[in-house]
Formats: sequence, structure tokens, C-alpha cells
Amino acid sequence: MPDFYDTTIRVRYAETDQMGVVYYGNYYVWFEIGRVELFRQMGFSYKEMEEKDDCFIVVGESQCRYKLPARYDDVLRIRTCILHARKRTIRFGYEVLNESTGALLATGETTHIICGRDRRPKQLPDNYCKLFGVRDAATPSHAATVKT
Amino acid sequence: MPDFYDTTIRVRYAETDQMGVVYYGNYYVWFEIGRVELFRQMGFSYKEMEEKDDCFIVVGESQCRYKLPARYDDVLRIRTCILHARKRTIRFGYEVLNESTGALLATGETTHIICGRDRRPKQLPDNYCKLFGVRDAATPSHAATVKT
Amino acid sequence: MPDFYDTTIRVRYAETDQMGVVYYGNYYVWFEIGRVELFRQMGFSYKEMEEKDDCFIVVGESQCRYKLPARYDDVLRIRTCILHARKRTIRFGYEVLNESTGALLATGETTHIICGRDRRPKQLPDNYCKLFGVRDAATPSHAATVKT
Amino acid sequence: MPDFYDTTIRVRYAETDQMGVVYYGNYYVWFEIGRVELFRQMGFSYKEMEEKDDCFIVVGESQCRYKLPARYDDVLRIRTCILHARKRTIRFGYEVLNESTGALLATGETTHIICGRDRRPKQLPDNYCKLFGVRDAATPSHAATVKT
Repeated sequence: MPDFYDTTIRVRYAETDQMGVVYYGNYYVWFEIGRVELFRQMGFSYKEMEEKDDCFIVVGESQCRYKLPARYDDVLRIRTCILHARKRTIRFGYEVLNESTGALLATGETTHIICGRDRRPKQLPDNYCKLFGVRDAATPSHAATVKT
Repeated sequence: MPDFYDTTIRVRYAETDQMGVVYYGNYYVWFEIGRVELFRQMGFSYKEMEEKDDCFIVVGESQCRYKLPARYDDVLRIRTCILHARKRTIRFGYEVLNESTGALLATGETTHIICGRDRRPKQLPDNYCKLFGVRDAATPSHAATVKT
Repeated sequence: MPDFYDTTIRVRYAETDQMGVVYYGNYYVWFEIGRVELFRQMGFSYKEMEEKDDCFIVVGESQCRYKLPARYDDVLRIRTCILHARKRTIRFGYEVLNESTGALLATGETTHIICGRDRRPKQLPDNYCKLFGVRDAATPSHAATVKT
Repeated sequence: MPDFYDTTIRVRYAETDQMGVVYYGNYYVWFEIGRVELFRQMGFSYKEMEEKDDCFIVVGESQCRYKLPARYDDVLRIRTCILHARKRTIRFGYEVLNESTGALLATGETTHIICGRDRRPKQLPDNYCKLFGVRDAATPSHAATVKT
């Protein structure tokens, strides 16, 4: 079972809509925060990953299941885990909970492709492979390509 | 095969991020536009559905697969169809295409639960059932509940 | 000189645009966070002000001057003060600073009208008048109207 | 009196907040659309101005006065004019009207500095000076600097 990395956010007025709850697209902004804070808690910053390693985590697929509404001023716990990591792809899982009640509000997943600034796919550098527990870190690139 | 209802939008500067392409969460805003314009082309407005019929299309699940990036100032065609409609749920499918090249940029789906303003599930009123081609429009409510 | 109430936020990827810095409209979202946290530090929540006292702080004017760009992943200090408070209007001032360098990135102001849920202007309840230091708290309403 | 360039948009559900009207920060997104469509109607695209001429219209100040609320699904007319144009700065004015009632909902202004991709100020290229009616197009650069 994967490790979850947690962060909390407070719902902004701007994130609500006229239904009186958070607009459904904003959960994906929170997922992004979850990913970034997972990275930070693992010991590096995504900002530097982009700038220094020319490594962009380009999203290929995203999904969210909404169970209970999030409301203005709620404090939410965003729980993020790495569902799998390969040399060329990485998949995250998310849970959004109401911090004061503990209720599960939503779950989600995103799949990403490792790319350079030019948006061309590339392999995840070795230091990140170790951090993410990529099992095929020593695999030659043609084999990794097949698996992806 | 379902009918698609089309609308076009132009990518806003605000919708891009520092990767130089549209931020992944904004596709869900476009899906919402697709749903609303599908409704309008079918002959009613979602605004009135909320206000006059106390009928809210609350999202239960959303999903998007990103194939090619959308860029600032691109004109995009949002194609929306009803994948299925029941008395208590409705599922939409989406395609996002670049209007000038015809390239398919993304596909997606959203599933919705019919609710009142109080966010409690309710049945879709009969006039909408006919419009959406709900096959079980005459089914007693307990049976519809089971199917949902 | 007014008291500043501080809060910090971290810039989200979603808040950047293709210029590589934060989109100019997002500063107003931060100003909203500044107002809400000022309220919280003064001892009440804006959420309850809306729900329990039917008191909405409707914006009448907003302004921002941008000095230096805010960038992805920066931690920012949002400093908010009450520039003036009357029975029917309230004016906030803002400063946005880079938390690690101390550089002033932007300043701003917003003016608000006290309204009920029906968006009709009303007087600020007495308990808030005291908190905000409204000097004309005991003034008859016609005089307050003239001053506003 | 300056010429207005008009464009229309329809209010998105995502643009509303729990007060049941459009969130105040979103008017600045519409102002951006107004600027871009003014440029297009004058015969060029801002996208190309950035890409081909390395000319970025970086915002230095923004302001909006809100008179009447914009609501979900409203069609709005965004009217944009150039208040003044210099070699190094440009100032736009905006009006937001409800297209069906003609009511004026908001007015605003933004001031911009001409910069390169490196965010360093530069002079507006001559072809744009002519389009924008910059009177000091032939002025030596040191003088233009003083005026700005």
C-alpha cells in the first residue's frame, strides 16, 4: 500500500460557484498542490525539477470522483501518493478530506508523462528514479519504452 | 452512436500556465461550456433548469485524457454528447479539437446526479426525460433507483 | 497608520500564465484571502458573517499596482489593513511581498459595500462596527448615509 | 473621445461564486479578452506580437469599478479602447455591459509597460506605434524615456 503525503489548504471564496460549493474543476488545482507538496516532502522541489533537470511532469490523464461537497472556508486535507512510477510515466492517487470532520470528499488519479521543456518524452533522471522507487532504473531505454 | 453538439471557444491568456500551454484543470471548464451549449441547442437553458425546475446537474465523476496541448489564442471546437441518460443520472462525453487543424486535443467524460437546490437526489422532470431520450421515463421510482 | 494583518500563501502552478509569472487577475484572489484572514485574526469568520448576520461585503471597486512579478512556488506574504470603515462601506489596503526576499511585489485596495443576501445595502451590525473601529457607530442612519 | 472595440462573451458557471454572481477577479480576465480582441480588430494578433516581435504588454496597474452584478449565462459586451499609447506604455479603458438589457455593469482601466520576453522594458516597434497612434513615434529614445 502506497505512502500518503499530506498537506492542508483552506477553500477560497473564488473556488466556490453559485451552487454554494466548490466548482468541480478546482479539485484538479488541489491535486496539483498535493503533487508538489509530496515532492517537497520527499526532499526536492518540482520547480527545480523543471528548471535544473529540464523535467516536466506533463499530465496525460486526470480523473476525480466527488462524494461530498467542499465548502467555502473549509480546511481540507489533500493526501497524495505515487500509485506507480516508471522511467517515463508516473501515476498519482489523491484523497480530499474535510480536516475537521474527517469525511472523505473526493478521490482522484492523474497520470503523467516525463517530458523536456520541448514537450518531448524523456526518461526520468536516475536521482528521481531512486526517490520514486522506479524498479526498472537500470533497464536499457528500449525496454523501458516497451513497458510504457 | 450519440449525436454531438458543437460549440467553439478561444483560449484565454488566463487559461495558460508557465509550461506555455493550457492548464489541465481548465478543460473541465470547457466541458461545462459544452454541456450548457448542448442544452441550449436542444432547446432549453441550464440556467432555467436550475431556477424554474429546481434541477441541478451535480457532478459525481469527471475524467479527461490529454493528447495534444491547447495553446493561447487557439480556437477550439468543444463537441459534447449524451452518453446515457437515466431518471437520476446523466453521462456526457466530450471531444476537444483544434478548429483550424482538426487535431483531437482531448477527450473526456462526466457523470452527474440530478439534485434539487438542497443537493438531495431527485428524478429528472418528464419534459427533460423526453428531450434526453430517457428510456425508463415511465418506470416507477423504486426501479429507477435500483438501476442508478 | 493602520494595522496590518499578515498571512502567507504559496503560488500555485495554476496561477501562472505563459509569460512565466502569475496572471494579473490572481492577485485579487489573494486580496480576498487577505481580507478573510484579517477577519479571522480579529476574532470572527467572514463565513459566519454571511451566514449568521446576513452581512455580505460586496466589492464596489478594486485596484492593484504590480511592481515585481510573483513566480511559481514563491511563498508570498499578504498584508491587509482596514483603510477606513463606515457603517455602510469598508475599504481595505493590501501589500504582497516575497516572503524570502522581502521584496514588495504589489499593492492594492478594494472598497466594499455592506449588503444583505438580497444585495441591498444595509448597515454594518454594531458588533462589527466596534471591531472595525467605526467612529460613527452611534450616528443616526441618515447621517451615515451622507458620509458614505 | 477614443474608439471602442467590442466583443461579447457568455458568463461561465465557473466564473460565479457562492454569492450567486460573478467573482470580482474574473472581470480582469474579460478585460484581457477585450484587449486581445481590440488588437485583432486593429489587424494583428497579440499572440504574434509576443512571438514574432518579442513584445509583451506587461500589466503595471489594473482597476475595476463594479456597478451591477454579472450573472451566470448572461451575454456581456466587453468594450475596450486605448486611452493613451506611448512608446513604452499603453493604457486601456473598458466597459462591461449586459448585452440584452444594455445596462453598464462595470468599468475599468489597465496600464501596461512594453517589455521583451526577458521582462525588460523596450520601445514599442514602429508598426505598432502607427497603429496605436503614438504621437512621439519619431522621438529619440532618451526623450521617450523621460516622458514615460
